[in-house]
Amino acid sequence: MYTKLWLDYETNDSGVRVLFDDPFSEDRKIQNAVKELKHCRFLKDKTVCLRITRDESLGEEGYHIYGNDPEYTIEAASETGLLYGAFRLISLLRLGFREVCEVPENRLRMLNHWDNMDGTIERGYSGNSFFFENNELIINQRTEDYARCLCSIGINGVVINNVNVKDEACRLIDDRHLIQVKKLSELFSSYGVKLFLSLNYAATMEDERIQSADPLDPRVGLWWERKFDEIYEKVPELGGFLVKADSEGRPGPFTYERTQAEGANMLARALKKHGGILVWRCFVYNCQQDWRDLKTDRARASYDYFHNLDGCFDDNVVLQIKNGPMDFQVREPVSPLFGQMPHTNQMIEFQIAQEYTGQQRHVCYLIPWFKEVLEFEICAKGENSRDSKVKDVVSGKTFDYKISGMCAVANTGSDENWTGHDLAAANLYGFGRLAFDPELSAEEIASEWIRLTYGNNEKVLQNIQKILMMSWPAYEKYNAPLGIGWMVTPSVHYGPDPDGYEYSKWGTYHKADCRAIGVERNASGTGYAGLYLEPNASMYENPETTPEELLLFFHRLPYSYVLKSGKTLIQHIYDTHFEGAEDVERMTELFRELRGLIEEKAFDRIEKRLEHQLWHSKEWRDVINSYFYRKTLIEDEKGRKLY
Amino acid sequence: MYTKLWLDYETNDSGVRVLFDDPFSEDRKIQNAVKELKHCRFLKDKTVCLRITRDESLGEEGYHIYGNDPEYTIEAASETGLLYGAFRLISLLRLGFREVCEVPENRLRMLNHWDNMDGTIERGYSGNSFFFENNELIINQRTEDYARCLCSIGINGVVINNVNVKDEACRLIDDRHLIQVKKLSELFSSYGVKLFLSLNYAATMEDERIQSADPLDPRVGLWWERKFDEIYEKVPELGGFLVKADSEGRPGPFTYERTQAEGANMLARALKKHGGILVWRCFVYNCQQDWRDLKTDRARASYDYFHNLDGCFDDNVVLQIKNGPMDFQVREPVSPLFGQMPHTNQMIEFQIAQEYTGQQRHVCYLIPWFKEVLEFEICAKGENSRDSKVKDVVSGKTFDYKISGMCAVANTGSDENWTGHDLAAANLYGFGRLAFDPELSAEEIASEWIRLTYGNNEKVLQNIQKILMMSWPAYEKYNAPLGIGWMVTPSVHYGPDPDGYEYSKWGTYHKADCRAIGVERNASGTGYAGLYLEPNASMYENPETTPEELLLFFHRLPYSYVLKSGKTLIQHIYDTHFEGAEDVERMTELFRELRGLIEEKAFDRIEKRLEHQLWHSKEWRDVINSYFYRKTLIEDEKGRKLY
Repeated sequence: MYTKLWLDYETNDSGVRVLFDDPFSEDRKIQNAVKELKHCRFLKDKTVCLRITRDESLGEEGYHIYGNDPEYTIEAASETGLLYGAFRLISLLRLGFREVCEVPENRLRMLNHWDNMDGTIERGYSGNSFFFENNELIINQRTEDYARCLCSIGINGVVINNVNVKDEACRLIDDRHLIQVKKLSELFSSYGVKLFLSLNYAATMEDERIQSADPLDPRVGLWWERKFDEIYEKVPELGGFLVKADSEGRPGPFTYERTQAEGANMLARALKKHGGILVWRCFVYNCQQDWRDLKTDRARASYDYFHNLDGCFDDNVVLQIKNGPMDFQVREPVSPLFGQMPHTNQMIEFQIAQEYTGQQRHVCYLIPWFKEVLEFEICAKGENSRDSKVKDVVSGKTFDYKISGMCAVANTGSDENWTGHDLAAANLYGFGRLAFDPELSAEEIASEWIRLTYGNNEKVLQNIQKILMMSWPAYEKYNAPLGIGWMVTPSVHYGPDPDGYEYSKWGTYHKADCRAIGVERNASGTGYAGLYLEPNASMYENPETTPEELLLFFHRLPYSYVLKSGKTLIQHIYDTHFEGAEDVERMTELFRELRGLIEEKAFDRIEKRLEHQLWHSKEWRDVINSYFYRKTLIEDEKGRKLY
Repeated sequence: MYTKLWLDYETNDSGVRVLFDDPFSEDRKIQNAVKELKHCRFLKDKTVCLRITRDESLGEEGYHIYGNDPEYTIEAASETGLLYGAFRLISLLRLGFREVCEVPENRLRMLNHWDNMDGTIERGYSGNSFFFENNELIINQRTEDYARCLCSIGINGVVINNVNVKDEACRLIDDRHLIQVKKLSELFSSYGVKLFLSLNYAATMEDERIQSADPLDPRVGLWWERKFDEIYEKVPELGGFLVKADSEGRPGPFTYERTQAEGANMLARALKKHGGILVWRCFVYNCQQDWRDLKTDRARASYDYFHNLDGCFDDNVVLQIKNGPMDFQVREPVSPLFGQMPHTNQMIEFQIAQEYTGQQRHVCYLIPWFKEVLEFEICAKGENSRDSKVKDVVSGKTFDYKISGMCAVANTGSDENWTGHDLAAANLYGFGRLAFDPELSAEEIASEWIRLTYGNNEKVLQNIQKILMMSWPAYEKYNAPLGIGWMVTPSVHYGPDPDGYEYSKWGTYHKADCRAIGVERNASGTGYAGLYLEPNASMYENPETTPEELLLFFHRLPYSYVLKSGKTLIQHIYDTHFEGAEDVERMTELFRELRGLIEEKAFDRIEKRLEHQLWHSKEWRDVINSYFYRKTLIEDEKGRKLY
């Protein structure tokens, strides 16, 4: 049996009275809404009216909830809105009821699962896939509970298979799997979630009659048109497809000297008549770089490949852009593609699978980080514009995108608690809530999640909230310093290895020597800082104006460089690394105060992971500090032990 | 089909006349000898007399070959001797016949296969296992050809399964596999090769009635006695067993606070009545070391665990000791255990599987290295003694051991050419020849192997011999400098990663900082140098007298330290690394001159690997040099590019 996460409110029958115009509605969303309300013990003997309105301001997914105990009304313009409203009412009853009228800010609110059909998960830290086993798609109670979970936080799209489409996954769009795909898409749809699949861009190469994936070869487009016709005939509710092309060994249009737009549009056109969306990833870079090459800057890659193509993509294409220019590090600047393609649908990609942020063995509540990214002002409409924050761009406000939104690489798996670390569920919950309403604060979201998961005990709320809010800053402190990233063990991406990516092909270098560290990314270097719009470009151009948390991302600086705190760079590294481990010590103490206040099994699970994190944060501290100490032989001012 | 290696002399029937006292002998060794002679095209229409003599000086495996074309005589005291003689005669005819009277120097001349029953090979670089597939032991033509190969170079013992005994291999000694084990042991025996198996020391823990592996628990000894009775009843020709205990996660007597001798003797006693030999590995160390711990020295471990146990091991136990104190690096001192246990059988363990020496993608002819090890004078009988070289100790001469010899971790697999790199076969051939006759020079062995493999073309002989003889020095030059070892990518052990093992649990640190590198191992440090007998202890105590190729193994020295060449240490590092890559360039040129002179497929295979090696040696050069350059910012005196 697995945990119920924040849906832990079940009773056999709450005795709630649910009123709806059509009490015998066969709409599955309505049925699910009613089921949810009936199983909520907090609705014992209350009345809930569901009402379809013509209020267009609620859009397709919004709702208006009002009333007074014991009678509540949910109004919405669609069944989806009513279903969302039902989940929301249940949350509100548990958190303190108040009237709300809420419409999701982002049209797309998606999860990407990197699940392989053999049951493994790429970068999965919570056991195996619950979608696939032995090359079959499986659907069971857990699948439905997962759909409920997603619906309860407003996720409306899910890609179930890995973006790296290999082996059996290449055949997921073939007849033999489509029966299951259809079932799953129906199950998901009944919770307002569209099913998406990752595609193998090169599928046509394996067709003996074609043996090409050239997007301008009419046979290729025709092949896809027929393929999509076939798929949509069987799975009419399918949301669309996700494609990773020309990236990390995946084939793509570059093979045929075609642009990314030509590749994407070929698929999008074949999809168009079915109303399908083509999500095209922008994670394109040279992953065979020579580490001796000082000119190529991986940070520039997405920008260089895509920004000139603005306006070239069809309107059912949306570009999926990672939050930063590198790859889900604990700290990166915002991708310079945001806000610079006014005529191209964009969606931001976060990663709640904690690949580089402790792999769900460390607590690392990522919502504060995502908030910082979303609040970054791009100044897309002039230096003083204030309506082009990342959140405004991806919500479609800034440029009036037809399709846009937020997605995240999922952190769930077959583990009893879904997310490996119990506290990692806050990232799943938080991402959904944030995609629905980017105005929510990280603290609010944490508080909601804690209370829905562990109840309303004040001490539990306070301590876990402190732990969550401390966790990302702590992780950043004991990790690679000042935005430089990548001091991590290659391929597994867990644990410290300061030179791990230094002499490799991946384009992620810090070039630390005994005097200085960093790759200069201003005009005297790779010019990356200049890719931003003003005033950001100027801000990043100079070390003095660069936000210090990104100092080493943008500049090569000597260890003697003095920060605003008055500390030298090297002393800052030492200090933050000691602090990071101390923070984890404090987090562990805070958690231990909760013994007896939360369920024992969950307590033990979390405590064990915190113990590991405590040990491991010290390992990070000592390895990173020793690395710099050995490079410089500069002692810690406070005389602490360096190795 | 796979290559014939150095046995490439087959014809359907040479028409040779073989004379033997008993022309209808059913002895399988005699039959194999006759078969070999009959299939050798170099014996066309010649006569070979096989004769069993009473000449005790030939021992059990020696032979005397004499005669003149077209009639040759092989005399031996046993059928094994005659079989060896037959193979030797064939070689001699190809290399130039001369009368020989040869007796192997070492009693045990063994190979250890690290093959797993699922078909994989731990540290295997030539494809999968040809002994195991899908958890079954397989016997086919290739198995017989392998036995022929081994016999032709005098190997007389083979352990077929990985020393890390896991999964199905734990059941290899159970009824269900013993039928195949018996067949294989008979096949091997017919070529003079004893079959050995690796044992899981903790087997008794899984017996529900015992659940212990305490060697002093009589139930444990009794269990093994019964088990060995069972095994030997079915497989009477079995040579014995190999055990890796208390090492790298393998269970052992330490779990019960018993000594290694108590563990080994318990098994040896149960084996004794069957004439079985127990090979006990001395590769015991703490593999959970804290890298911050400056006192523990892994190099000391085997010595510290074993040397006090001299005289405590039963006489059918032989200790298998790796050539150096660490683990098969490209350069290490000799293990201090050799020569310091006069009352304990010892065998040396080499590794021809090129785990740390280029993984059979780089040419690295290891015989010159093994020769240096074997020629090292331990001075076991006083400072001036000259009869206790490593070769004398392991041949049993120095202390009159009952059992002793040489073994090597095998480098063969299911690849068409057996050893991944065609030239790696020289290591297999060479190890066998060297174990038989340690007086052979590396050049002689190379010359034999080249001529037997590629024929007598003078250019081929010259160039490949140059390549082979250059290869180990070249590999050493572009690898970690001056004996310090371990600058290799963790776990895969391929490619440069200067800090790869620096912050890990494996006990292999170089502690390089911006001024100095190395762990002091003299009396002021870990005291390791003092473990040797005089005058070696004094020699290693001081940097001035330490052989320079081991300088950084024994001493921590500043980069400004001046070597005998007058170069600073850092300049030496730069120079050797440039030289190493240049050497590979030369090797590649030398090989390319042979186009058309050796079979095209083989040429292409080798050329392709040399191209990779050339690229990879430059990668090694640049990574190692950049590592030190960045640590010191000391420029290369010759102004070559450092990164």
